[in-house]
Amino acid sequence: MSNNINTKPMTGFMELLPEQQRAFNKMLKIIREVYDLFGFRPIETPLLERAEVLLTKGGGETDKQIYRFQKGDNDIALRFDLTVPLARYVTEYQNELIFPFKVGNIGKVYRGEKSQAGRFREFYQCDMDVIGRDSLDLCYDAEVVAMACEIFNRFGFEKFKVKLNNRKILNGFFDSLDLSDQITDILRILDKLDKKGEQFVREEFNSIGISSNKIDSILNFISINENVIENLEKLKISNQKYLDGIKELRIVLDYLPLLGVDANNYQVDLTIARGLDYYTGTVYETILTDYPQFGSVCSGGRYDDLASYYTDNKFPGVGLSIGLTRLFDCLLENDLIEANEMSSTKVLVTGMPQYQNEGLKVVNILRGKNVNCEVMMGFKAGMKYADRMRIPYVVILGEEEVSQGKYGLKDMISGEQKMVEIDELFDELI
Amino acid sequence: MSNNINTKPMTGFMELLPEQQRAFNKMLKIIREVYDLFGFRPIETPLLERAEVLLTKGGGETDKQIYRFQKGDNDIALRFDLTVPLARYVTEYQNELIFPFKVGNIGKVYRGEKSQAGRFREFYQCDMDVIGRDSLDLCYDAEVVAMACEIFNRFGFEKFKVKLNNRKILNGFFDSLDLSDQITDILRILDKLDKKGEQFVREEFNSIGISSNKIDSILNFISINENVIENLEKLKISNQKYLDGIKELRIVLDYLPLLGVDANNYQVDLTIARGLDYYTGTVYETILTDYPQFGSVCSGGRYDDLASYYTDNKFPGVGLSIGLTRLFDCLLENDLIEANEMSSTKVLVTGMPQYQNEGLKVVNILRGKNVNCEVMMGFKAGMKYADRMRIPYVVILGEEEVSQGKYGLKDMISGEQKMVEIDELFDELI
Repeated sequence: MSNNINTKPMTGFMELLPEQQRAFNKMLKIIREVYDLFGFRPIETPLLERAEVLLTKGGGETDKQIYRFQKGDNDIALRFDLTVPLARYVTEYQNELIFPFKVGNIGKVYRGEKSQAGRFREFYQCDMDVIGRDSLDLCYDAEVVAMACEIFNRFGFEKFKVKLNNRKILNGFFDSLDLSDQITDILRILDKLDKKGEQFVREEFNSIGISSNKIDSILNFISINENVIENLEKLKISNQKYLDGIKELRIVLDYLPLLGVDANNYQVDLTIARGLDYYTGTVYETILTDYPQFGSVCSGGRYDDLASYYTDNKFPGVGLSIGLTRLFDCLLENDLIEANEMSSTKVLVTGMPQYQNEGLKVVNILRGKNVNCEVMMGFKAGMKYADRMRIPYVVILGEEEVSQGKYGLKDMISGEQKMVEIDELFDELI
Repeated sequence: MSNNINTKPMTGFMELLPEQQRAFNKMLKIIREVYDLFGFRPIETPLLERAEVLLTKGGGETDKQIYRFQKGDNDIALRFDLTVPLARYVTEYQNELIFPFKVGNIGKVYRGEKSQAGRFREFYQCDMDVIGRDSLDLCYDAEVVAMACEIFNRFGFEKFKVKLNNRKILNGFFDSLDLSDQITDILRILDKLDKKGEQFVREEFNSIGISSNKIDSILNFISINENVIENLEKLKISNQKYLDGIKELRIVLDYLPLLGVDANNYQVDLTIARGLDYYTGTVYETILTDYPQFGSVCSGGRYDDLASYYTDNKFPGVGLSIGLTRLFDCLLENDLIEANEMSSTKVLVTGMPQYQNEGLKVVNILRGKNVNCEVMMGFKAGMKYADRMRIPYVVILGEEEVSQGKYGLKDMISGEQKMVEIDELFDELI
């Protein structure tokens, strides 16, 4: 007698039907192929880490979300991203690794967030990072963008945009206004500009004590969205960080078209900041242009020092991360993905049950020629299975066929059926 | 200033260098390809489950090993195998799934075992199962063996043996001796036969009250290893379960050669029992013949009722599982695997730093033609990187080359270097 146990996965844990999983796995495969195309090497770190390894960045919010527990004497936690384990990995194997270390890292991460629609507690991150030793060329800031674009192109997306900024420009600009201490608040307020309008934002700025002169400067600054480099230079800000940021951004923008990135697939957006303590140079977010409600589907940036928590050696890096679980969920919800390939099987072998042995022989020969196939004797059951699984060809072993040493071959799409010799069977199927 | 944090992964958690990870991933890829070849469909279940879902089978030992913790109101555990989550999955989606449900399931599982050499606390299982609704043809008991053999062949293993038995034969035999209650002890003692010899085993049997007549019968029974079906029939045991088991085993043995399984790659072994409560028919273990110390690298069997804990509907199944992490570790330890492919990159583009833009253009063209390539300007750094990464070709952009609109092409294996036109470059590299 069965128990009364809830067999649904827990809230926030994606679980797919096989045909959906096949579509998901195809996306994973594309990502792995693009990693190879760009020379990014695979690594995999454990899902569990000593808690002290993980509880270093992020602070409060991360600590609350993290899955953490004791097992024996060990204080263990599930990783909440792939970057912190990467920092540990690079520190541990720094003498074996070859730098720049170009790394493609796909894995599940865990965040015990409050349950809400579209939020996952277990989800895939697909990261691509380049880690230098002491220094790292700016061309990699462009290369990860080219890589993300190649992935999105292979996904079949036409309208997407990587939005770029440089944290040095932001930091330098607010330095120049003596507003460095208030950056967090300022960016939080600016985030509401689209929804609430300029008047609302002005009032908010006013309420945290920013003068109307400075408010004008801020609004003028973030309104720049064409000829960005030129217009940023026109502001005549002499802050060194600001100037460095412009220089870096200009180089990255020069490289992108050389790497084949379409002008429609990127733009500078001076409001992009990302994690405030973490990134130090280029920062990225990516939106699907027709579906801004999906949020950023690929984000990241440059960090001066990946592993400062673990080592005094300097490992500057730049990286991007695709949150694949959430992206897939959005695509599925909006009917933007085909998830109806029931199986990889090209041929089902069926027929009268007494020809089971012949059936096994046929699938064995076909598999030897690398044709994906299955056998299910019993004509009625076999045809029903082939139909439901959308298998394109059925080989039929009936009395007539076997007595003549031939094979029935049915094309399930056209409905055409004929009796063929073994050679013709292979010609059609291989 | 960095902290003093241990950056090694925890004991029992495998972590590989990229070149090793590449070798590991190739094995995963082979397994996925064979799943497709046999029509097995992908699924993926969460790594975390409600504890009540998992704490059903196995009992004591599993409970002690399981990673379990509270998060908010939730009693959560990490899965310790893929079969229990599969049972939950099949129960939950029984109305959407198409049966027989052939499923290939690869994922990490967790067991907080006592730390010892060769034991992993986080490891991959690669499972292949066929689940029927109410009934399931015996041909699948042979098909999963053919599949495992195909995988091992593609791994490049020559000497391996799938050992088969049928639990009904074992149970029926001990029933016929009125020893059903002592099966566990008897099998434990028989396990020592190879190491401690017959005399020791006889004494042990004697000490648990088995008569010398019955001891003779047992030792006679398990010594059968040729013409197994015939010799089992010769014992003239009329127990129905015993006879059913022989019938099933005979059918499976008939199917294996039809499915192309080499006679050297399987044998009946009447001592194979596997989990005592779980399996009800065919059972399997697999050894690498030259490395019996690796233990069973692929095990499983048939179960009458996969999901009895969750539902009264009957789902008989048969499956095999490869413990890939342990297998890979054994291969690596014994130098049985090539894990020195540093990268997938075919071409490195390098040259004088002032030709950075040309370099980016070249990699972009090559990538457009699906050639895996990287760019690293600075001739010395580039050549060193190509050499360490064992990249077979280097494209060189020097003053002479660029001024003539040509490209230097160095074959890193032969050492040959020539100057070529762009067309010739593509001819050589694509």
